Amino acid sequence: MDENQELNERFEQLTQALNETDIQKFREVFLDLHIYEQGQFYQSLDESQRQIVYTYLSPKELADMFDVIEEDDEHMTEYLSEMRPGYAADMLAEMYTDNAVDLLNTLDKKQVAKYLSLMPAEDASEIKELLHYEDETAGSLMTTEFVSIVANQTVRSAMYVLKNAADVAETIYYIYVVDTDNKLVGVISLRDLIINDDDTMIADILNERVMSVHVGDDQEDVAQTFRDYDFLALPVTDYDDHLLGIVTVDDIIDVIDDEAASDYSGLAGVNVEEVSENPLKASSRRLPWLITLLFLGMATASLISHYEELVSEASILAVFISLITGTAGNAGTQSLAVAVRRLAISDDKEKSFMRTVIGEVLTGLVTGAVTGLTIFAIVAVWKQNPILGFVIGMAMMCAITVANLAGSLIPMLMDKLGFDPAVASGPFITTLSDLTSVLIYFNIASLFMNYFIR
Amino acid sequence: MDENQELNERFEQLTQALNETDIQKFREVFLDLHIYEQGQFYQSLDESQRQIVYTYLSPKELADMFDVIEEDDEHMTEYLSEMRPGYAADMLAEMYTDNAVDLLNTLDKKQVAKYLSLMPAEDASEIKELLHYEDETAGSLMTTEFVSIVANQTVRSAMYVLKNAADVAETIYYIYVVDTDNKLVGVISLRDLIINDDDTMIADILNERVMSVHVGDDQEDVAQTFRDYDFLALPVTDYDDHLLGIVTVDDIIDVIDDEAASDYSGLAGVNVEEVSENPLKASSRRLPWLITLLFLGMATASLISHYEELVSEASILAVFISLITGTAGNAGTQSLAVAVRRLAISDDKEKSFMRTVIGEVLTGLVTGAVTGLTIFAIVAVWKQNPILGFVIGMAMMCAITVANLAGSLIPMLMDKLGFDPAVASGPFITTLSDLTSVLIYFNIASLFMNYFIR
Repeated sequence: MDENQELNERFEQLTQALNETDIQKFREVFLDLHIYEQGQFYQSLDESQRQIVYTYLSPKELADMFDVIEEDDEHMTEYLSEMRPGYAADMLAEMYTDNAVDLLNTLDKKQVAKYLSLMPAEDASEIKELLHYEDETAGSLMTTEFVSIVANQTVRSAMYVLKNAADVAETIYYIYVVDTDNKLVGVISLRDLIINDDDTMIADILNERVMSVHVGDDQEDVAQTFRDYDFLALPVTDYDDHLLGIVTVDDIIDVIDDEAASDYSGLAGVNVEEVSENPLKASSRRLPWLITLLFLGMATASLISHYEELVSEASILAVFISLITGTAGNAGTQSLAVAVRRLAISDDKEKSFMRTVIGEVLTGLVTGAVTGLTIFAIVAVWKQNPILGFVIGMAMMCAITVANLAGSLIPMLMDKLGFDPAVASGPFITTLSDLTSVLIYFNIASLFMNYFIR
Repeated sequence: MDENQELNERFEQLTQALNETDIQKFREVFLDLHIYEQGQFYQSLDESQRQIVYTYLSPKELADMFDVIEEDDEHMTEYLSEMRPGYAADMLAEMYTDNAVDLLNTLDKKQVAKYLSLMPAEDASEIKELLHYEDETAGSLMTTEFVSIVANQTVRSAMYVLKNAADVAETIYYIYVVDTDNKLVGVISLRDLIINDDDTMIADILNERVMSVHVGDDQEDVAQTFRDYDFLALPVTDYDDHLLGIVTVDDIIDVIDDEAASDYSGLAGVNVEEVSENPLKASSRRLPWLITLLFLGMATASLISHYEELVSEASILAVFISLITGTAGNAGTQSLAVAVRRLAISDDKEKSFMRTVIGEVLTGLVTGAVTGLTIFAIVAVWKQNPILGFVIGMAMMCAITVANLAGSLIPMLMDKLGFDPAVASGPFITTLSDLTSVLIYFNIASLFMNYFIR
């Protein structure tokens, strides 16, 4: 693609400028890049090259780039620790507060204290304020760099305030209106300011029905509000309606991505976010799950072992074990996915709890009946043994119903107990359903034992 | 919550106003709501109530609300068909073009032609232009309501253009600069306009390195650009760089949501987007998958049937069938999830193809070896039979490696053939892996048959 080619050329120019220590050429090309592309280039360098970059760029210029870099914690810590502490502190002070806080949260407390002591007192206190908000809340997402005004002024004077704030504010497209006690009383968009006359009073065009989120709200709920209302930013308040900060849509996109990846990871029983290509590392992350499930699977094996005599008398039973466990596992995975999704989008979890579980069990009965009838017909024809077909079909129906019950009940209970429902992963449900399916299968088979052996 | 209570109260006032046919009160309360809340109220009504609403609100007022309603196609079609055709056409004309197009795409061609013929010619031609873009491309996401200017003017005159366009444009926060041939030459943000003096020439402050997407680009790639660069809007161009429209961040959030839900649905083998609480409907959607997989499972069953004699001689073999198929299935699901994710975030799919598959096979060998050794030790102790333990462990290792191969290779091939890799669902991989696992297991068992039977 043309754009990629052009970018590669620029990256080559930059590398050349670094090698030739041509600071002027480097700055010219580098500062003309979009900050995301600056980050891509920076991340492609080795340490000795990065050290040159730190001498070529001001803390403010580096801060703009760091505002958009998305890297794992390990690398971020490395970048910070290789800078002169004073330079790093200045850069942190120049970053948007929310991003600086995210970066500092990857360090240990001693390091954080060091950087805070090295930066201007005002910046340090802004950062300190945000540092103590809990992870995954509105407070941890918000920035304090917003524009707020009082209602008792004209559009002209508000535009003047905005002009002065435009350099530091993370967004200037919403202006929040507060009373003298800093309580949020309204919002006005830059669009409103632009279409109204300069002499209009803010109080007259102010939107008083301002949506806001509380500082302790879960980030998923905040994301849901953005999705529903199509906002570009939302104000964050404390329980007394004081305006504390704003959350912007770019941070919300990251939240939506993270939540989606974590739901997806849960369903697969593997963390897809840390996609490492090193098979040893990958194995060490997947093995705990596999081995845990292996022991659960051993329970199933010892259950079958318990029925070994039955199997030796009727080895035909062994033929259908994997069919029944497999089909029930598939059904359970479907239920699990639906239940986790329902939890994510439901406003009234109490109500959806019972409805989902009952709905899934009924769905299990219906799908189980159809699947059971199908397998009954197949076995009756294939093995010329309708009673065996009945046993397999009956077991299939019960196993699917129980798998649907487990698939929906377990995530719902997890959620009720305050855990992330996505932790009830697909592999866990299928392995658990293996156990119940085998139990059901052999019990039904025992009952009819005398009828289908010929 | 207070906000919910307040909203409920307003909804009650509105219902009362409808019942009392108090148009003034209705309009006062309704138009004071956020458009998303208006939509919630509207969707809670029955048809006779909605008919009153259509007489109380202008097409423009209804259009604002319809711009944010997210409902399934069935309901949207119902809403449109119950309005007077002329009213519906006026409303469609007043909506943002991209949303009107989305709505029209749910109707059949005849209906679309009817509405287009009833609306003002200019609006109809704007909509027609967008109607023929393929689904899930930048073209299908874009709107034509943007602000574009030529470079040869001052900030003051640009602000004047903006002021006039603010009413209809979907965003005014980026202004796109074009040459006389309507080719995109740069971009300027409203923030830039505000911080610069009124007499500055646009040409002097213009950002010429404007990112854009092509009209045929896949919506996933467009979303990735938004994520990387934190844009609020992106211009869409044809292959000759002519500016055709813009994509805004609110549409991108919907895309990200849809893509996440579809990946998640794929992994679970169930469409979680259509979360219906009716068990019959739910069953009818899940059964095709379950029955298809049942037939694949029958292949596994007939394979075991082929080895029935072996099982009747050594019924102990039956004990470990579900353990081996289950564990291999879990490993295959992990591989699948990682491969699908890698495809989603990879820029160079050719390169990642071989690396992912080889990486997953190596990971399979390592996890398989560890899991195999574990089960060898357990069986050797539990059943006092090290040779049986060796058979199970060996089968486990091979089955896991093959499951990892299938889990990574199948989505990669799907992608290469132009299908959505997420279609290679988790249930499909586990059911397929049941088959290969059983094949591996009984073949290894046959080889060592004479050694472990005592």
